[in-house]
Amino acid sequence: MQRQRRMWRRIIALAICTVILAAFGTNFTFAQDVTTPTMDDIAAVKTSIDTTWVFLTGFLVFFMQTGFALLETGLIRQTGAVNALLENFIDAGLTALVWWAVGFGIAFGADNGSGLFGTSYFFISAAQMSELYPGLTINLLTMFFFQFAFAATASTITTGAMAERTDFIGDLIYSALIAIFIYPVIAHWVWGSGWLFQQGFHDFAGSTVVHTVGGVLALVGAWMLGPRKGKVWGKIPPAHNLGFATLGTMILWFGWYGFNPGSTLGMGNPGLVGLVTLNTTLGAGAGAMVCMFFMYARTGKWDLAGALNGSLAGLVAITAPCAFVEPWAAILIGGVGGVLVVVAADLVEKAKIDDPVTAFAVHGANGIWGTIAIGIFAMPGFLFAGPYAAGGELAGQGGLIYGNAGLLVTQLIGSASTIIYCAVTGLLMFGLLKVINRLRVNSKADEIGIDVYEHGVSAWPDVLPVPSEDPLVKGAPSKAPAVGD
Amino acid sequence: MQRQRRMWRRIIALAICTVILAAFGTNFTFAQDVTTPTMDDIAAVKTSIDTTWVFLTGFLVFFMQTGFALLETGLIRQTGAVNALLENFIDAGLTALVWWAVGFGIAFGADNGSGLFGTSYFFISAAQMSELYPGLTINLLTMFFFQFAFAATASTITTGAMAERTDFIGDLIYSALIAIFIYPVIAHWVWGSGWLFQQGFHDFAGSTVVHTVGGVLALVGAWMLGPRKGKVWGKIPPAHNLGFATLGTMILWFGWYGFNPGSTLGMGNPGLVGLVTLNTTLGAGAGAMVCMFFMYARTGKWDLAGALNGSLAGLVAITAPCAFVEPWAAILIGGVGGVLVVVAADLVEKAKIDDPVTAFAVHGANGIWGTIAIGIFAMPGFLFAGPYAAGGELAGQGGLIYGNAGLLVTQLIGSASTIIYCAVTGLLMFGLLKVINRLRVNSKADEIGIDVYEHGVSAWPDVLPVPSEDPLVKGAPSKAPAVGD
Amino acid sequence: MQRQRRMWRRIIALAICTVILAAFGTNFTFAQDVTTPTMDDIAAVKTSIDTTWVFLTGFLVFFMQTGFALLETGLIRQTGAVNALLENFIDAGLTALVWWAVGFGIAFGADNGSGLFGTSYFFISAAQMSELYPGLTINLLTMFFFQFAFAATASTITTGAMAERTDFIGDLIYSALIAIFIYPVIAHWVWGSGWLFQQGFHDFAGSTVVHTVGGVLALVGAWMLGPRKGKVWGKIPPAHNLGFATLGTMILWFGWYGFNPGSTLGMGNPGLVGLVTLNTTLGAGAGAMVCMFFMYARTGKWDLAGALNGSLAGLVAITAPCAFVEPWAAILIGGVGGVLVVVAADLVEKAKIDDPVTAFAVHGANGIWGTIAIGIFAMPGFLFAGPYAAGGELAGQGGLIYGNAGLLVTQLIGSASTIIYCAVTGLLMFGLLKVINRLRVNSKADEIGIDVYEHGVSAWPDVLPVPSEDPLVKGAPSKAPAVGD
Repeated sequence: MQRQRRMWRRIIALAICTVILAAFGTNFTFAQDVTTPTMDDIAAVKTSIDTTWVFLTGFLVFFMQTGFALLETGLIRQTGAVNALLENFIDAGLTALVWWAVGFGIAFGADNGSGLFGTSYFFISAAQMSELYPGLTINLLTMFFFQFAFAATASTITTGAMAERTDFIGDLIYSALIAIFIYPVIAHWVWGSGWLFQQGFHDFAGSTVVHTVGGVLALVGAWMLGPRKGKVWGKIPPAHNLGFATLGTMILWFGWYGFNPGSTLGMGNPGLVGLVTLNTTLGAGAGAMVCMFFMYARTGKWDLAGALNGSLAGLVAITAPCAFVEPWAAILIGGVGGVLVVVAADLVEKAKIDDPVTAFAVHGANGIWGTIAIGIFAMPGFLFAGPYAAGGELAGQGGLIYGNAGLLVTQLIGSASTIIYCAVTGLLMFGLLKVINRLRVNSKADEIGIDVYEHGVSAWPDVLPVPSEDPLVKGAPSKAPAVGD
Repeated sequence: MQRQRRMWRRIIALAICTVILAAFGTNFTFAQDVTTPTMDDIAAVKTSIDTTWVFLTGFLVFFMQTGFALLETGLIRQTGAVNALLENFIDAGLTALVWWAVGFGIAFGADNGSGLFGTSYFFISAAQMSELYPGLTINLLTMFFFQFAFAATASTITTGAMAERTDFIGDLIYSALIAIFIYPVIAHWVWGSGWLFQQGFHDFAGSTVVHTVGGVLALVGAWMLGPRKGKVWGKIPPAHNLGFATLGTMILWFGWYGFNPGSTLGMGNPGLVGLVTLNTTLGAGAGAMVCMFFMYARTGKWDLAGALNGSLAGLVAITAPCAFVEPWAAILIGGVGGVLVVVAADLVEKAKIDDPVTAFAVHGANGIWGTIAIGIFAMPGFLFAGPYAAGGELAGQGGLIYGNAGLLVTQLIGSASTIIYCAVTGLLMFGLLKVINRLRVNSKADEIGIDVYEHGVSAWPDVLPVPSEDPLVKGAPSKAPAVGD
Repeated sequence: MQRQRRMWRRIIALAICTVILAAFGTNFTFAQDVTTPTMDDIAAVKTSIDTTWVFLTGFLVFFMQTGFALLETGLIRQTGAVNALLENFIDAGLTALVWWAVGFGIAFGADNGSGLFGTSYFFISAAQMSELYPGLTINLLTMFFFQFAFAATASTITTGAMAERTDFIGDLIYSALIAIFIYPVIAHWVWGSGWLFQQGFHDFAGSTVVHTVGGVLALVGAWMLGPRKGKVWGKIPPAHNLGFATLGTMILWFGWYGFNPGSTLGMGNPGLVGLVTLNTTLGAGAGAMVCMFFMYARTGKWDLAGALNGSLAGLVAITAPCAFVEPWAAILIGGVGGVLVVVAADLVEKAKIDDPVTAFAVHGANGIWGTIAIGIFAMPGFLFAGPYAAGGELAGQGGLIYGNAGLLVTQLIGSASTIIYCAVTGLLMFGLLKVINRLRVNSKADEIGIDVYEHGVSAWPDVLPVPSEDPLVKGAPSKAPAVGD
């Protein structure tokens, strides 16, 4: 009885509703628009929120450029300070132009089917203003800016390892090439629906895409340049301004709250943003603490530069896995980073490669470690958390400690591919510069310091004066201090 | 047949609906309030988003004060560093108080009909907390803070050109007068429904209102002060701390992402925010690159200070047109700024006006250029994009390259009016200070340096010591270094 | 007639609607979900907005750590710069770990009924990612990060007063203890539904919880340490780097726009955020201006350090009352702070306590003053404005000037309880460190400077060199400069 009655009710109600809706569909919708919002209103609101989040975190990522400039400048000798400042500064401007023209399109344009690079979004115009980026709730231009800030970071990392001795025109050329041909290709492979993305490779915020790329290029560049004149092996020369180095690192940590949490590319999942932020904080803290104690055990001194590098190592390492792992794992990953950075710096030194700011140890070694760490610690079910995260058969199975070895293999393949691509392109690029004699400054510059040679000034003339207007002619400082003093 | 059936359906449905709505109108609405949101909910949400955006970008604009402090301090001689730091710092505090009392009301209060200044919103109280700013989705207090951060910027620009030799009480007086009588009047003309606004004059984020005002006042002030003691014409003295100058510039660029994108005053149009951000980035990058290469062509050195000033020139120039022009035009506008800043600095030097940080060349010349650039490059249909942008007959016609000369004329009128107003009020203001002997420090201060004279300290006593407690009596440094060393 | 007809209409409509809804309840809801949003959609959107606001302001609060590092480093002598940098830097990493493990749970976990501390939320895991914090619209993890940034601030304040002479291991121990046992307890009392909260005690953003705690611990620590070697009483030694001190203060002011406005813990009331921001700005400005003029009246010099400390004093003082008072009262409160900071610093000096950065005068004295100021100036009806604000019988009555003395009594009780708790725990903690000989470095360190002794380096070796690798053995600087030079 009851079921029958219910069926009749439904038929009647259905009839009435059909009539009403059929007849007044449009009118009704219109009336509704005035008095109650639609899902379009909600979608517009969500885009506004996500845009607010992505731009403001993107601004923080842009500010990291300042952090890199001060960190590098502070860690090196004063005779190369102006050079370091200008290289880091101009890198933002240079990358902006080439990223707009070419880089963004290669990285985030539509794939041509090869899985290797994108082929649209070159020279973005105002007409594309209202376009949403495919698959996201943010506009194309919002995505452009956020990714520009990332791209600028990658080539800046390289300058640190090549500090104090790179030809300035060479610096401009390689920075442009990285932003056009190297970084965007890896970004496409991993984040732009390329072949690694399709394999289920995961890198939430760039341990591979930004830091491994920057770190490997840094190592290749430093190796091809040769050491600074007077370099004493096994002895890292003292930082000339630890105030700037500390300020730079703290700006970088601050900016990392744009880098990692902003990589959600929206605020649709506030809990995920929370996990990313927590893991980023714990990774940085563990890296700093572990490295500081590790250095104390080795030297008996509380090493400021060590603590700074340790925090950066932890940050680099947690950048890939921050959305996929437990907080305790973030501490472990960051803490391992704090040891790894010291060990890796030792190895680089033993290999007779002069990396004045230990850029490879911080970004390269820990970028690789963070990428692998996903394969070990990723929680089951978390791998889709990221906006770029791909699927495949690995979807949701988690890492090695959860009984799945397949993800680790994929992560190793992705990291190795990136290393090989960057090593090969780096060798070609820096080799080309060497051929055209634009890789390294000449011995006169080593004599008087790169600041006076390339830039004609001293960063702090009250402390280290430039004796004359044309220092190469009239009474320049007889010799830059040896690297190791 | 079909049409008839449809008509019958409509009549029946209409009848049913009329009955339902007539009978249960209020009840229905009530039920709806509980289960489904209204447009009021959406409006409240939008205000929350827009407030989030405007406050956070406003905080970035406030941070620019720090950038100005470090840039100015870094570019001048060490003997005036404390003076520069304090002038830039206290300007924020001073402006906060007078902007609350008077300035904001003159700029953004309701026009008294004259089109010349506003006459409400003085001494804002807590009771006005919930008030929306007329015509906007943000509160009065949100608007107040954002505009305060802008106002503080304007008077800070002036201190750079007047560095190392201005009486400190004179500095306080002129900074207060700018924030009360000069800046707010121009802000009202352009943004506060004043006469230029009514003419269809456009300045999206302040090339005229902030930078032309600050730059013209800077030039008048520097001219009336006379040069620093020992000034060697045609030779810009070396920056005493290029680390601070670079840091300051990078903070300014970072803060500009508040200045320009935040000037949308809300997140209702995410695509427009994207265009503004892209154009700002390209303008800055082009300015820096072009200026660096231009200086290299002139001097054979890669000039760090030139690259810094070039980026600022590009940023100032793109500030007015950033919401109205194509990205390629932004590159052009910024690039022209990168040359203009050098040429203008030369002209100021040739006019025997000592502007230690080239404040007029950066802010004045490029503020004027950016304002004019709207008249040339504005895209048709984009002129209402800005929150303050006015209409008139020029609405939507675009600039000169789109066949409309009228807008260019309006822009020229607006720029010229601003220059004239600032020159006249500047002459009166600085002239008055000269009469009461509060414009320039005395020759003793020139002798021992303004830091020791006005502030009794040295910024870095380990590098440049203050020899005794009372330096004017017991053994002060015999002479500050000549400007040009 | 009409009433009867209406009644019939209602009955018919009710019948039809009953039928429709009864039959198609679920289906309808489903249809509705597609076409119109529900209040759940609005709630989700609000959480996204509030999360965006709280994270971004939390990032600003985190950046204050950088401000403290530079301010302290700039104000002290160069021989302790590295020590100050590392203490401030590592404090962030250390606090992150212990706050995650223990501190947050004690402060913001569920009260065990005692009103004294919380007992949940220890070792937060990824599973708690989607949990909202009870009573708020933001997630547990969002709350965690924002409160972490606050916690880091509290222990950092203490390092300033103890600069140049604290054993580094002792610094690590007391920083951890503050973040585990001292700060979280007060935070729980006031913000975590503890006994002061239940009494109706108000502290909007931490004049008591952060600044009184930090300031009192600073005073106890500085007293137990004893003065720096060579300290000349009554004479504050010159800041060794006023550039860093100014930069640090400006970063702190910038970060305070996270500290106070972010303490709304959401953007549900944009007008309140506006009032908080306005009052914060006016408090800072008044503090800076009043202190600068007060110092000028005393010394005849325009004191940069005074202006910096004055702004911080104003900021500390307005932190508790910023959501509850009129803008004119904010100016008064900040202005009083600008005098109080000088008077308090004199008293500390007269009590023969060596507080190198006047941390107690800035944070302690003004934290107390700001807390009391609520009892005087709070507007009726505003006391529920804050997210933590409690009720009780005082609800909505306002402060003394509105005829209610009860609130002032509550504020005095809260401030006194905090002072007593911190003094007692501080004495125990620092006493314990003294017993195990980990409070103060030895006399050799005083001789050669703490940087060389504890860290083996100099912050700016080009200005103040470290003569050998092992400075304690071979030719370290014979003596650090006396405190007062």
